[in-house]
Amino acid sequence: MDLDRQMDLRPTEGTVVARRHLLPVRVYYEDTDFSGVVYHATYLRFLERGRTEFLRAAGVDQSTLHAKGGLAFAVRHMTLDFLRPARMDDVLVVETRTEEVRGASLLLAQRILRGDEVLLTADVRVAAVSKGRPARIPEDLRAVLTPRAAIPSR
Amino acid sequence: MDLDRQMDLRPTEGTVVARRHLLPVRVYYEDTDFSGVVYHATYLRFLERGRTEFLRAAGVDQSTLHAKGGLAFAVRHMTLDFLRPARMDDVLVVETRTEEVRGASLLLAQRILRGDEVLLTADVRVAAVSKGRPARIPEDLRAVLTPRAAIPSR
Amino acid sequence: MDLDRQMDLRPTEGTVVARRHLLPVRVYYEDTDFSGVVYHATYLRFLERGRTEFLRAAGVDQSTLHAKGGLAFAVRHMTLDFLRPARMDDVLVVETRTEEVRGASLLLAQRILRGDEVLLTADVRVAAVSKGRPARIPEDLRAVLTPRAAIPSR
Amino acid sequence: MDLDRQMDLRPTEGTVVARRHLLPVRVYYEDTDFSGVVYHATYLRFLERGRTEFLRAAGVDQSTLHAKGGLAFAVRHMTLDFLRPARMDDVLVVETRTEEVRGASLLLAQRILRGDEVLLTADVRVAAVSKGRPARIPEDLRAVLTPRAAIPSR
Repeated sequence: MDLDRQMDLRPTEGTVVARRHLLPVRVYYEDTDFSGVVYHATYLRFLERGRTEFLRAAGVDQSTLHAKGGLAFAVRHMTLDFLRPARMDDVLVVETRTEEVRGASLLLAQRILRGDEVLLTADVRVAAVSKGRPARIPEDLRAVLTPRAAIPSR
Repeated sequence: MDLDRQMDLRPTEGTVVARRHLLPVRVYYEDTDFSGVVYHATYLRFLERGRTEFLRAAGVDQSTLHAKGGLAFAVRHMTLDFLRPARMDDVLVVETRTEEVRGASLLLAQRILRGDEVLLTADVRVAAVSKGRPARIPEDLRAVLTPRAAIPSR
Repeated sequence: MDLDRQMDLRPTEGTVVARRHLLPVRVYYEDTDFSGVVYHATYLRFLERGRTEFLRAAGVDQSTLHAKGGLAFAVRHMTLDFLRPARMDDVLVVETRTEEVRGASLLLAQRILRGDEVLLTADVRVAAVSKGRPARIPEDLRAVLTPRAAIPSR
Repeated sequence: MDLDRQMDLRPTEGTVVARRHLLPVRVYYEDTDFSGVVYHATYLRFLERGRTEFLRAAGVDQSTLHAKGGLAFAVRHMTLDFLRPARMDDVLVVETRTEEVRGASLLLAQRILRGDEVLLTADVRVAAVSKGRPARIPEDLRAVLTPRAAIPSR
């Protein structure tokens, strides 16, 4: 833990517990709407931050990936259950884990939690693309992302 | 068609064709991301604009609904298929139609189109809520929204 | 006025009156925050839509400009006065006019109106950039944008 | 430093150094646009996160403030200089300090930094409002926010 971290001068990157990546996020004004709670599309931004830090924890910088080979991850399919609303100033945790790793896509199970409450569950399929076409996920990246141990279902 | 409309001084509210509400939207800078195409969560904003104008065409102003009885529509479930990317300056059409009207929720089928291409399909369940609790959809509103005629499946 | 327009199937592009470009915009859920009114950064998205349609009315497609020579317009300076709040479902008009055209930048005066009320005024300087460096605005574009007639100050 | 913090399970709230509040933020997909850099209105969201954590460090929860007396802070005026662009995956720091505390408004000086580079400077006036009307800032809050020591100008 470096000095910046102790000074709280690095943004939170989350942590991995039992093969689940956990990223805390704070709810700000920008995330809410006039009904008083968090705007529904905001949760997709939170989920994407979770996937980005999940990949970073696995050693992948998406800006580097994009600069090197034009590789990017694009969302192909999502199933979302909005269970409870989040509110201004809430501290949430975005949980991300790999469900399945295929040649050109990943299946991820994500949840948004507030303490013990589950606010949202999401099944997300992201595909690797390069210059607008499907691309294979590099072998070393696939190896890192593959769920090796048995993981209890949510 | 009033003068403002002719002058193009009213925002587009879309139109209803064969019980499908069609709302055109333009892609702006704000909707894209560094990968060069439209950011995936942006489509949820477009879908919500479509639902808002669909309700307005049915005579419902959500700000009035909210001011009167605290009634709001909240998204409960979404299944999304992202088929093709949209780009800066594209003209898209958000198509919305009622699949089913229940006592406290609506099932909507939505698509985002660019000309003849389908870019995204979505099944969306929205629930009526008042002060954070499920609420019945007013009878007159249910009557307007109920699909009466046979609608060809997409 | 083509058929799509009559059918309200084209997004509004606004109109030019007395050398001012006027673009109507509708306030949606996505634009508001939990305080009940429009989120302050939302107005910048509205202003940018106004500038984009202002340029389109002058014959400039920013996606084409970017694809051809890598040319983009970047905001360099803004002075913003937030005078009155906008609310859900409001119809606003974004007014844009050229104040000054220089070799590599434009000075624009923008306002956001709701009927006769002025909600926001903005002075905006945008610079032409190409591959991250200042670039000259093409001569023909400068000619189109230059304010020729005397324009009453706001 | 509690266990959650060590586990990196609390969102970063930043820190105060020499009467300047410093909040680190990470650039995600959602913050960028198709020109390849951060979208200009995104910086306003970052600045607002900075002001929110600055107030939280001074003991003010805006959701509590709003729930208790309907008090909210609304941006009235902004002067913004966009000096250098930020990019995907960048770690930025939002710096916030009080310039002046009046009865019903605050003048704040904010900057967005990337290491030693200044990317943006902003002068921001926020006013206290309650039910849409100007309101006095509570005395104890004014006392906490008032700059007591001489602060070198930026």
